[in-house]
Amino acid sequence: MGKKVGIIGVGHVGSTTAYTLIQKQIADELVLFDKNEKIVEAEINDLIQGQIGNESTVRIKGNDLSQLASCDVFIFSAGKIELLAGGADRFEELSFTKKVVEEWAPKIKASGFNGILLSVTNPCDVIVRYLQELTGLPKNKIFGTGTSLDTARMKQAVGEGFGVHPNSVKGYVLWEHGETQFIAWSTVRIAEQQVANGLSAEKIEYLEKEASAAGSRIFLGKIYTCYGIANQAAKITKAILTDADVVIPVSAYSESEKLYIGQPALIGASGIKKTFDLTLTEDEQLSWRRSVEKIKEMYAAI
Amino acid sequence: MGKKVGIIGVGHVGSTTAYTLIQKQIADELVLFDKNEKIVEAEINDLIQGQIGNESTVRIKGNDLSQLASCDVFIFSAGKIELLAGGADRFEELSFTKKVVEEWAPKIKASGFNGILLSVTNPCDVIVRYLQELTGLPKNKIFGTGTSLDTARMKQAVGEGFGVHPNSVKGYVLWEHGETQFIAWSTVRIAEQQVANGLSAEKIEYLEKEASAAGSRIFLGKIYTCYGIANQAAKITKAILTDADVVIPVSAYSESEKLYIGQPALIGASGIKKTFDLTLTEDEQLSWRRSVEKIKEMYAAI
Amino acid sequence: MGKKVGIIGVGHVGSTTAYTLIQKQIADELVLFDKNEKIVEAEINDLIQGQIGNESTVRIKGNDLSQLASCDVFIFSAGKIELLAGGADRFEELSFTKKVVEEWAPKIKASGFNGILLSVTNPCDVIVRYLQELTGLPKNKIFGTGTSLDTARMKQAVGEGFGVHPNSVKGYVLWEHGETQFIAWSTVRIAEQQVANGLSAEKIEYLEKEASAAGSRIFLGKIYTCYGIANQAAKITKAILTDADVVIPVSAYSESEKLYIGQPALIGASGIKKTFDLTLTEDEQLSWRRSVEKIKEMYAAI
Amino acid sequence: MGKKVGIIGVGHVGSTTAYTLIQKQIADELVLFDKNEKIVEAEINDLIQGQIGNESTVRIKGNDLSQLASCDVFIFSAGKIELLAGGADRFEELSFTKKVVEEWAPKIKASGFNGILLSVTNPCDVIVRYLQELTGLPKNKIFGTGTSLDTARMKQAVGEGFGVHPNSVKGYVLWEHGETQFIAWSTVRIAEQQVANGLSAEKIEYLEKEASAAGSRIFLGKIYTCYGIANQAAKITKAILTDADVVIPVSAYSESEKLYIGQPALIGASGIKKTFDLTLTEDEQLSWRRSVEKIKEMYAAI
Repeated sequence: MGKKVGIIGVGHVGSTTAYTLIQKQIADELVLFDKNEKIVEAEINDLIQGQIGNESTVRIKGNDLSQLASCDVFIFSAGKIELLAGGADRFEELSFTKKVVEEWAPKIKASGFNGILLSVTNPCDVIVRYLQELTGLPKNKIFGTGTSLDTARMKQAVGEGFGVHPNSVKGYVLWEHGETQFIAWSTVRIAEQQVANGLSAEKIEYLEKEASAAGSRIFLGKIYTCYGIANQAAKITKAILTDADVVIPVSAYSESEKLYIGQPALIGASGIKKTFDLTLTEDEQLSWRRSVEKIKEMYAAI
Repeated sequence: MGKKVGIIGVGHVGSTTAYTLIQKQIADELVLFDKNEKIVEAEINDLIQGQIGNESTVRIKGNDLSQLASCDVFIFSAGKIELLAGGADRFEELSFTKKVVEEWAPKIKASGFNGILLSVTNPCDVIVRYLQELTGLPKNKIFGTGTSLDTARMKQAVGEGFGVHPNSVKGYVLWEHGETQFIAWSTVRIAEQQVANGLSAEKIEYLEKEASAAGSRIFLGKIYTCYGIANQAAKITKAILTDADVVIPVSAYSESEKLYIGQPALIGASGIKKTFDLTLTEDEQLSWRRSVEKIKEMYAAI
Repeated sequence: MGKKVGIIGVGHVGSTTAYTLIQKQIADELVLFDKNEKIVEAEINDLIQGQIGNESTVRIKGNDLSQLASCDVFIFSAGKIELLAGGADRFEELSFTKKVVEEWAPKIKASGFNGILLSVTNPCDVIVRYLQELTGLPKNKIFGTGTSLDTARMKQAVGEGFGVHPNSVKGYVLWEHGETQFIAWSTVRIAEQQVANGLSAEKIEYLEKEASAAGSRIFLGKIYTCYGIANQAAKITKAILTDADVVIPVSAYSESEKLYIGQPALIGASGIKKTFDLTLTEDEQLSWRRSVEKIKEMYAAI
Repeated sequence: MGKKVGIIGVGHVGSTTAYTLIQKQIADELVLFDKNEKIVEAEINDLIQGQIGNESTVRIKGNDLSQLASCDVFIFSAGKIELLAGGADRFEELSFTKKVVEEWAPKIKASGFNGILLSVTNPCDVIVRYLQELTGLPKNKIFGTGTSLDTARMKQAVGEGFGVHPNSVKGYVLWEHGETQFIAWSTVRIAEQQVANGLSAEKIEYLEKEASAAGSRIFLGKIYTCYGIANQAAKITKAILTDADVVIPVSAYSESEKLYIGQPALIGASGIKKTFDLTLTEDEQLSWRRSVEKIKEMYAAI
């Protein structure tokens, strides 16, 4: 009867996501997978000790493929961000994570896994599509964290700019989880008033830079990011596990373009229940085109 | 009116402790300190993003010594566990962390800080004593995490051995947070029955090895530990901030031996309100002696 | 250093609010006040037992006016909803709660209380104004729960109508917490798209009836409501105690009309930091006029 | 995949238990049952509104017997404590609740319910036995809250007596959830030291009176109790739903006496996994006899 979550790849992101699922008591059982057996053993022990004396009583297992079929949600967080730190570009990152997908997809397929797959690995929109193709999972049952973290960073920047808590900033960052991502200013609101109304172009540009800087400051200081992305992965996982029917911007399949791209979607037990058509300005439509082309180009590189 | 916690040293332990304080909404405001400015900037941003969209709304600042005086609790978690991974022994670790204490103690003293100082840095019992001496803080207002984590590990091992959740195992690991630590079997109970009653010496030995292995397995796999110790630091911090008057085994000052050593203590807003005299078996008293000598020897090395 | 909350009136609303503040660990210390000493004694004991064995360790005291001055937030929830159940109208309710205000206001004034006063008692907009006048508290430091609960009910109705979780419905119910309240459809959005766009008048009317029914169904079945209003009171209290700077629709002072009325406000440690001018349609402006007149009329009845 | 809990009887206890399961996010779906349809409708709406804007997203349904088969846990909290307030004794209460059992047991049996039934209704030990007989559920899959609340009250009284938080008091109240209940002083410990050691008979008697008063003070002031018992019901429910294997004193079946009686039990997904033989003093054994006879006598009255 419990809620069971598998996590592939227990580096910083996977392990912090596990910890967050425990702290928030979102999952009742976790199964960690990683090529490195010692890491799995270490994280299981550290995570068990991380909840002793607390109200959370999450059971944690490791590296047992027979557990995969009974997982309700599977988080794919294998990757190697250190490559980027070493100066690699996104294409080099892709050539690494592509191999990880090719390694795990057949195992997932063979396991009889029938739940929802949430992919965190970068480049997010490209990897999730590749995972969908190799696993053959229905397109609504596999999606990526997409621009959910970028949206949070936009809220942080706008919130600081206006002296308001990020949670009271509404709106979306859309399209690619990468360079061509796009703050949809027509959707950004505080107290239901459009934030961009009457703002100078300089101020808009400043806020966009701050939103972007909110990510790069982390990368510069600690090479990887973990809390922000774990928070988003945990929220999406919870929406699935509790059949919450909440709207979150994720990397969802676009029927028109035949690819995965960041957009608001209704998320519940069956994965993505629907996506929403947004009323976009002309500029916003242009940004869509740009992101679509970029994602296609990267996908072609696989 | 909020509860304000400072953290010195935002490596894995410090940063995971900050995240735990946020997830559990124990603190209302955090101030992070580290020699490395970029790390502080990175962690602040990652931690802010780690709570966007959640109910927690903790404010996070960094590296501002003027904030120290208004902190209710100060967590000292500066250290360099990588030294041990590189083959250094405890004395070499000590010679490193000793310097960090010497660097920070005068700043703490000068700041007018008047709250409770909780030290996590290893070797715990020695460092906390050194910190007390250099800062001149009252002995009840400074103490260490001590054997709280070792106690959790004992509960994990005993719990697994008996098919019972660690939270339903009672009892203490006492004395040094190090090699001479000691499972006080006379205190270890499940359903208020002594666990060691009628157990063979082999079984006892096995459980002791497992308790010890619960720590070393983490170290082997990921070099550092973070969730287990962050969990203990957060629990102790919460006990102080909510004036909870709960009993936790920590590294507290022993008037008889004039040093800090792991023992159950009553923890509330004023720090350590009292320690408890334990009825010990003869063996247990011997173990006390051994730990006391060990801690004295290490302290002499400073 | 803890966060201290006083509650006047521990009937269903006051006591459920206390329980919610404990469950969510929003307050560290509670002080309950009621004319009925036995009720206070009873609730203190029940609430203490309600957290034993949990992570929450809230201290609870009762009926000690000397504690008032050190409260950070004061929740005024004295009232007698049973009057309405017996067939009384709002004016009869008012003549009862008016007396309770007159009884407590001088005590609050004399206590030296310097925190934020949050009023829940109905008729909300009128009572909070009367409380402000009799206590002389600065207008930003006293406000009412206003249409926060009505907004939640609108989200429930719209969410059910569209198959979306209430939390993914944005927007406000404005003005009087009473009959002339008003769903500001221009602000109601799902996935940042206006919900009312393209809806028939019948559908709009249906949703408005459902929103209203969400309240009356509770009243019909259990005479009083407690969880919904306690949830709002707790959220507002938390916003104050954590200096969160979040936007919540509450009964805030209107400088232009010299009365309290439901509108979105920025809430933090100093109470209401600012209110927001909303861009309203012509119909929405008419509704404002209607509510203002109604509130004035009721106030005149005091 | 979610965790589903049914509650029969949504008076104060049932409804507060539902609220607690929501606040602590223990259940993902609730189904409320009561003869009074309007109460069910009212509580569903109040409970839904009680979580809007929060992280909890529990789905709540009502009075649909077809939902019973898929419930993981069923809480039986039908009753009428007002009878006692009116001066009725335990036997009169029994004659009322007996009928409620006879009404619901056939429905539970017919529903195909296959989960764990937790009974709260008083007199607890007698009603749970009657429910077991009428439903035919396996004896490990049905049990009562028993002395779990009495144990909490003992911890409150002892904690206050010694200036220690109730959570740091260990030990059990055993046997009947009623007049013959018994504080097993040999199990009561603070910092693993027996509390009763060296206490005068007067002090012991005082603490016993305080423990008992902790319950009657609530009853005197508000007629019913809700938070304390809801807290215990929620904790036990969580232990089942998360397969936690924790030890809690509940009303469990005694093979030797063929009745249900309060004792520590290991609780997990399959209900009661085992009970524990306690090493009792002679006095403690006498108390067992007394409680057994009392429960038998009451049962005979059915």
